[in-house]
Amino acid sequence: MKIPDATIELLLEHHPVGRLATLGAAGDIAQVPIVFVHYQGQLWSPVDGKPKSGGELARVRNVRLNPQVSLLLDAYEQDWSKLWWLRIEGRASLVQQDPGADTRVAAVVQALCDKYPQYRDVPVLREPPTLIAIRPTRVLSWCADAAAMLAGPGQH
Amino acid sequence: MKIPDATIELLLEHHPVGRLATLGAAGDIAQVPIVFVHYQGQLWSPVDGKPKSGGELARVRNVRLNPQVSLLLDAYEQDWSKLWWLRIEGRASLVQQDPGADTRVAAVVQALCDKYPQYRDVPVLREPPTLIAIRPTRVLSWCADAAAMLAGPGQH
Repeated sequence: MKIPDATIELLLEHHPVGRLATLGAAGDIAQVPIVFVHYQGQLWSPVDGKPKSGGELARVRNVRLNPQVSLLLDAYEQDWSKLWWLRIEGRASLVQQDPGADTRVAAVVQALCDKYPQYRDVPVLREPPTLIAIRPTRVLSWCADAAAMLAGPGQH
Repeated sequence: MKIPDATIELLLEHHPVGRLATLGAAGDIAQVPIVFVHYQGQLWSPVDGKPKSGGELARVRNVRLNPQVSLLLDAYEQDWSKLWWLRIEGRASLVQQDPGADTRVAAVVQALCDKYPQYRDVPVLREPPTLIAIRPTRVLSWCADAAAMLAGPGQH
C-alpha cells in the first residue's frame, strides 16, 4: 500500500538520510547516502565538511550534466511488517551561493543546522559553497503496513 | 578513505539491505531497497513474497531493458565518524528458473533462507520465480574511519 500523505510529510521533515542517485555521462548510476532538509518545496543537500575523496563530487558533476535524479528514503527493519520506502523522483540544480549573499541559502543552512546537531562540529559548506536542490516531479511510496511503519525503532 | 577489502567482503556477506537503482526507458531512475545474498561472485536478489504493488516490478522491467545497475550498501549513524558507503556498479540479469529445475537457483534460495530468518514466514519466490543477479563491474567505497565503522551498533 502507499504511505499516507501525512506520514510522507513527516518523513520528508525528519528522516535523517536519503540515498541519492544521479546519472553519469556514460549512463552509469552514482548512488550515495546524503543528508537533506525539506525547505520551500524542495529537498536540499549540502556538499558539507565530512571527509571526501577529493576533487569535484560525482553527484555534483552528474547534476550539472543531467538534472534527473532520484532520492530514496527507507528504513530497514528485521520485522518486515515495518518496511516502507519513499522515492522522490525530481530535477536537481546546483545552488552555489554564499549564505552571506543569498537569504535562501542562509535559511537552508540554518535548517540543516537545526536538523543535524553534528553541524556544530562539521562545516555545513566547503569551498565553493554548493547545495543540491531537488524539485520533486513524482513521488512513489510503498509500505507493508501504514500503522506498523510508525511503531518501529527507526533504523536508517 | 576506501573501505579495506576484508571489510568489503564482510559487508557483502552480512549487510542485510542494499538500495538498488535501475534505469527506466524514459531515463528515469528506479530506486528501491532490496535484500540480497552474495553467491559465486554475484549479488542475488529475489522477487519475494513481501507485499507488492502488483504487476511486474519496475526493477524487473528495467533490468530487462537495461542491465546497468547500481547497488548501494551503507548504514546511517548519528556519529558521523562511523559513516561509510559501498557502491557496486554492475550488470544485472534476470534468472527465472524454478529452484527444483536449477541447482544454482536452489543454492541461492538456500543462501537467502540462511541469511534471512524472515523467510520462514515469507515465500522467497513467487510466480514466475524471478531472481535478479548482479555481476559487479566496478566497486567504489568510502568511509570516514575504517576502524570506527566496524564499532557501530549497525543501523541500516
